[in-house]
Amino acid sequence: MIIVLRADATEADLEHLVARIERVGLKAHVSRGTQRTIVGVVGDEDVIRSEPLDRLPGVERAMQVLRPYKLASLEFHPDPSVVEVKGVRIGHGTVTVVAGPCTVEGEAMLTDIAAAVKAGGAAALRGGAFKPRTSPYSFQGLGEEGLKLLRAASDLTGLPVITEVMDTRQVPLVCEYADVLQVGARNMQNFNLLTEAGQTGKPVLLKRGMAASVTEWLMSAEYVLSQSASPVILCERGIKTFEDGTRFTLDLSAVPAVQALSHLPVIVDPSHATGHSHLVAPMALAAIAAGADGIMVEVHAAPAEARCDGQQALVPTAFAAMVDQIHGLAKLLGKEMAAPTTDD
Amino acid sequence: MIIVLRADATEADLEHLVARIERVGLKAHVSRGTQRTIVGVVGDEDVIRSEPLDRLPGVERAMQVLRPYKLASLEFHPDPSVVEVKGVRIGHGTVTVVAGPCTVEGEAMLTDIAAAVKAGGAAALRGGAFKPRTSPYSFQGLGEEGLKLLRAASDLTGLPVITEVMDTRQVPLVCEYADVLQVGARNMQNFNLLTEAGQTGKPVLLKRGMAASVTEWLMSAEYVLSQSASPVILCERGIKTFEDGTRFTLDLSAVPAVQALSHLPVIVDPSHATGHSHLVAPMALAAIAAGADGIMVEVHAAPAEARCDGQQALVPTAFAAMVDQIHGLAKLLGKEMAAPTTDD
Amino acid sequence: MIIVLRADATEADLEHLVARIERVGLKAHVSRGTQRTIVGVVGDEDVIRSEPLDRLPGVERAMQVLRPYKLASLEFHPDPSVVEVKGVRIGHGTVTVVAGPCTVEGEAMLTDIAAAVKAGGAAALRGGAFKPRTSPYSFQGLGEEGLKLLRAASDLTGLPVITEVMDTRQVPLVCEYADVLQVGARNMQNFNLLTEAGQTGKPVLLKRGMAASVTEWLMSAEYVLSQSASPVILCERGIKTFEDGTRFTLDLSAVPAVQALSHLPVIVDPSHATGHSHLVAPMALAAIAAGADGIMVEVHAAPAEARCDGQQALVPTAFAAMVDQIHGLAKLLGKEMAAPTTDD
Amino acid sequence: MIIVLRADATEADLEHLVARIERVGLKAHVSRGTQRTIVGVVGDEDVIRSEPLDRLPGVERAMQVLRPYKLASLEFHPDPSVVEVKGVRIGHGTVTVVAGPCTVEGEAMLTDIAAAVKAGGAAALRGGAFKPRTSPYSFQGLGEEGLKLLRAASDLTGLPVITEVMDTRQVPLVCEYADVLQVGARNMQNFNLLTEAGQTGKPVLLKRGMAASVTEWLMSAEYVLSQSASPVILCERGIKTFEDGTRFTLDLSAVPAVQALSHLPVIVDPSHATGHSHLVAPMALAAIAAGADGIMVEVHAAPAEARCDGQQALVPTAFAAMVDQIHGLAKLLGKEMAAPTTDD
Repeated sequence: MIIVLRADATEADLEHLVARIERVGLKAHVSRGTQRTIVGVVGDEDVIRSEPLDRLPGVERAMQVLRPYKLASLEFHPDPSVVEVKGVRIGHGTVTVVAGPCTVEGEAMLTDIAAAVKAGGAAALRGGAFKPRTSPYSFQGLGEEGLKLLRAASDLTGLPVITEVMDTRQVPLVCEYADVLQVGARNMQNFNLLTEAGQTGKPVLLKRGMAASVTEWLMSAEYVLSQSASPVILCERGIKTFEDGTRFTLDLSAVPAVQALSHLPVIVDPSHATGHSHLVAPMALAAIAAGADGIMVEVHAAPAEARCDGQQALVPTAFAAMVDQIHGLAKLLGKEMAAPTTDD
Repeated sequence: MIIVLRADATEADLEHLVARIERVGLKAHVSRGTQRTIVGVVGDEDVIRSEPLDRLPGVERAMQVLRPYKLASLEFHPDPSVVEVKGVRIGHGTVTVVAGPCTVEGEAMLTDIAAAVKAGGAAALRGGAFKPRTSPYSFQGLGEEGLKLLRAASDLTGLPVITEVMDTRQVPLVCEYADVLQVGARNMQNFNLLTEAGQTGKPVLLKRGMAASVTEWLMSAEYVLSQSASPVILCERGIKTFEDGTRFTLDLSAVPAVQALSHLPVIVDPSHATGHSHLVAPMALAAIAAGADGIMVEVHAAPAEARCDGQQALVPTAFAAMVDQIHGLAKLLGKEMAAPTTDD
Repeated sequence: MIIVLRADATEADLEHLVARIERVGLKAHVSRGTQRTIVGVVGDEDVIRSEPLDRLPGVERAMQVLRPYKLASLEFHPDPSVVEVKGVRIGHGTVTVVAGPCTVEGEAMLTDIAAAVKAGGAAALRGGAFKPRTSPYSFQGLGEEGLKLLRAASDLTGLPVITEVMDTRQVPLVCEYADVLQVGARNMQNFNLLTEAGQTGKPVLLKRGMAASVTEWLMSAEYVLSQSASPVILCERGIKTFEDGTRFTLDLSAVPAVQALSHLPVIVDPSHATGHSHLVAPMALAAIAAGADGIMVEVHAAPAEARCDGQQALVPTAFAAMVDQIHGLAKLLGKEMAAPTTDD
Repeated sequence: MIIVLRADATEADLEHLVARIERVGLKAHVSRGTQRTIVGVVGDEDVIRSEPLDRLPGVERAMQVLRPYKLASLEFHPDPSVVEVKGVRIGHGTVTVVAGPCTVEGEAMLTDIAAAVKAGGAAALRGGAFKPRTSPYSFQGLGEEGLKLLRAASDLTGLPVITEVMDTRQVPLVCEYADVLQVGARNMQNFNLLTEAGQTGKPVLLKRGMAASVTEWLMSAEYVLSQSASPVILCERGIKTFEDGTRFTLDLSAVPAVQALSHLPVIVDPSHATGHSHLVAPMALAAIAAGADGIMVEVHAAPAEARCDGQQALVPTAFAAMVDQIHGLAKLLGKEMAAPTTDD
């Protein structure tokens, strides 16, 4: 940590600061510039962070030198990590397509879509049983019944299944049926849920909060990783900005930015980010071109009849055409397409 | 709902749309303009909302006419509602000052601060026992021990106590000790927690999410209110913007904007919003001038020793001086200052 | 325009509103719903827009039906337009790479970079002679001397040259030397400059303002187009958000979103958007994958010696490697790479 | 400047960096921590800033120690500065109310409003002759005719007049008629206009750009001040955020934040910021409570007939009632209300 003193700081302020730093076992390096005195604080980073040194008299501000995450960092784990879910790879060198309906609406509907996305090139199935809805009066998902249907569709197609968990109390139940636990954007800083999910051993797909910086996102990954059981897959899904022509603003720069900081796989959800089906395919391709390890998209056989987010769902033919283009792009980038290992 | 057709929509598109609207029991009013045909949809608003009519062929966009909240709206409850907690009023015509430490650190510390904020003019006590921390390595609060200390400090001073609940599983425990349940900004869209808190009958202090629009904030209040047990107090605490000189950007316009839409009391937390103690008093005064029903601020006897957010805490003398100014302002605005009813 | 009345609007309010609408030659279509009365306003859109009907008693809000731009819209010009600059195509079916230094620093430096970017695959040259700098104490560009050097480098390489004009008074001078006039992000709503540039007949490269919505951006294009002389090329270059890990947040969704609304070509500047050289190539590829008609990037032979924005410049070898990848991607998308027509 | 080396930086990287620093006459202080080596750069700050040291091999990032503005800073001028315009004080210890129509629409209208705002307690008159309009088809103001009317209304009432200048070419003309030159939010980084306005000797009212940080705003003030002729008055008018219930988000924290950094007076425009007349008075009061040196608001006798921004204008009686409340608040804060000195 670097502490910058105010121009009018006194010698007594400086001595007080140095004494305070040394009292907790840290070292202070004082450097007097032409306009400011600066104090470098050296020692255990966790101790440094926990001291509100910027509240001491004469201090203008304190600047962090190190990034606050460890287990998620590239320094801790210099090679990109790969998460493998029932034989499907997510991470370095692979492009993984996850697809499915926004919400599980019923058995026939789910079976059809699961078959369609498998035929179209998906390597994993997504679908919501517990749905976070802005309105208490909207359809909230089928709950456990939805989980059972997802498990059945997964068993039928061989596609591993990703579904959201919204509540610490649901974690054991969702683990019975899901292959990957999704923590949604609205729960990215639900720290108890992160901790609970991190203890299951199941991979956690962590969506970026709509107001989360890349650093905060990686800190939430750190919560999961600090439980030492579950690997993490990051998922960029758009942030809130003043632009109202799209549902959110998809921040694709976050993909290479994260990859320069962290070993974790990162995929992109262009469906929720844009909110409009005609923007999904261009942004899915852009995500892969930016270096993402995969995409997650919503597919519905009859979007105009969907019970949730129909305006952003692709129909199966559009999905298959998009995956074809992604194949070509993956080849260009020297990457493999992920595929389910099981035959069906 | 108003549906705008594309310039190139056909008669068949229009007929299909009208048929779809009528199929679910709604009525369609078609209006042909010089450049666009517009269809007004009339009927049960919940049905209207659940239909993805903007996915039909020929539709350019759908515009909501009614706001999506009911119980939180001024139309449902035209007079401002007042929440009373152990004799302390929060709402219409009253200015209520809530103060206390960011985190409960220990008994002596809490007792001192509680006494100091009472002497300084606070009507209620705040303090964290369960703390949402960005880093898993930061101090996470004293948990139940902290709750017990808060209860004791409350009993000693007669100040009702507000504390945060972060997890659905903690709700019964926190209810044993707290007078008001706080749902933090990071959990504003933790819908399960809102539902659980809304069933307790205890008032819920609902902080605005850092990326939540006023409409989304009121929808989260609607979740609580839809449980028919707990009243809601809103708390503006700053939103995320590009400005990095303050921790968040305090959106004071949200105060009169909410009051024009909702009957719920709204208070302001300038401590978390600004993140700097020298900005707290000006913004607390500004909040009251903007019409807020109260403020919630952090006070610490020795901010440089605080275990959490010391840089934004006021010392007790600065707190008391600020409350003096608020007294003058309340008088100017024709409002009363809230005070605890119990003698001690 | 659709006008929504308040729930408590009276019959007199409605009559007053209708009279007001009819007074200016418009027609009012009244539609009474279960909870709200709605008035559709039909007639000359410019007249409608100029009337502050939402200030009338009983009015809750007014919603625009039509988009406010005409000449920039796809309805006015249903085919994508292509701008041709000295034989170099920008627009539909083509991928155009524009490259060069942030700032012209001197003759040798510019000649070297111009040759390098041509060799690397650029179809046009960029470079700043007048530089908008946040600080009055920073290097402000070489001015006319810089323009002369750009002209000479253009003549030498056959690459048409794009350079920024910052002031209405500079327009004639810059026109003497430049092939395309750039209006920078900070001047996107400098309406006098837009008007002046639009009268020159030279193509105008219009960067998106860092706080401009897509609609506002197209309205600024409309200013230029309304002068009936100059075509417009749009350039996305990042918007301001809370994310501080990148200089701006590159909004690639704006590319397909614009293409669904407007016939204007749209290119992307990943250098200014990200501010970090290691993010430029991934985001350039992503831009092309999203459907952009080209990219504009900064190249410098010795970024650590650059007088401006060295941290975001590519070295010539990295530039050439990136263009190689773009070639492959263009082929995949069925597009041609633009090339200068003249031999040198 | 503080330079943080990467964890994998070599000794050669460090030596190269130090040599580079010393080559331009600066000094390097090397400090080796447990996890990072840090280099403090000491010397002429302008030289430091102009070197892209973060592009050197082994460098992770560079952190600024000093703020980039000088003439605008509190260190350069430790007492708050006061701008006096024809006897009307703006700054320290005074509350100044500026009011008038958005746009000058004609003589009778302007004379009436000028008289009304004077009677209501305004100390200065505002009004637009050159209007920055998002659409080329909107009313653009009366131009020189509007300036003449403003001058006449000012002479009649004794209220000094503030009006916007949009173009470097208009500066001499506007100076003939105006007492204060306004540079609008959209031109806050029109650096040529800032320079030109700064040479006139007339006070410059500098509105904050809708995407400008406080630092960028002060840098634009620095442009004006660096011309050594004109004083600067800052004006906060709202920033762009995701909140769409108000036109912009008024950032009142910027008022005390600026006052802790700069000596310049700062006033607030709640009309443009909120865009709704019912939010103007609460936010005007809040601005004064936050410590602002004044407010600037729009007043119109018949807002529903206004040619521009009628929905945010106050009627004269509402204006006078608001100023009455401001009087009480100024007294509470120990401030004087500014008043025009001339009798009429």
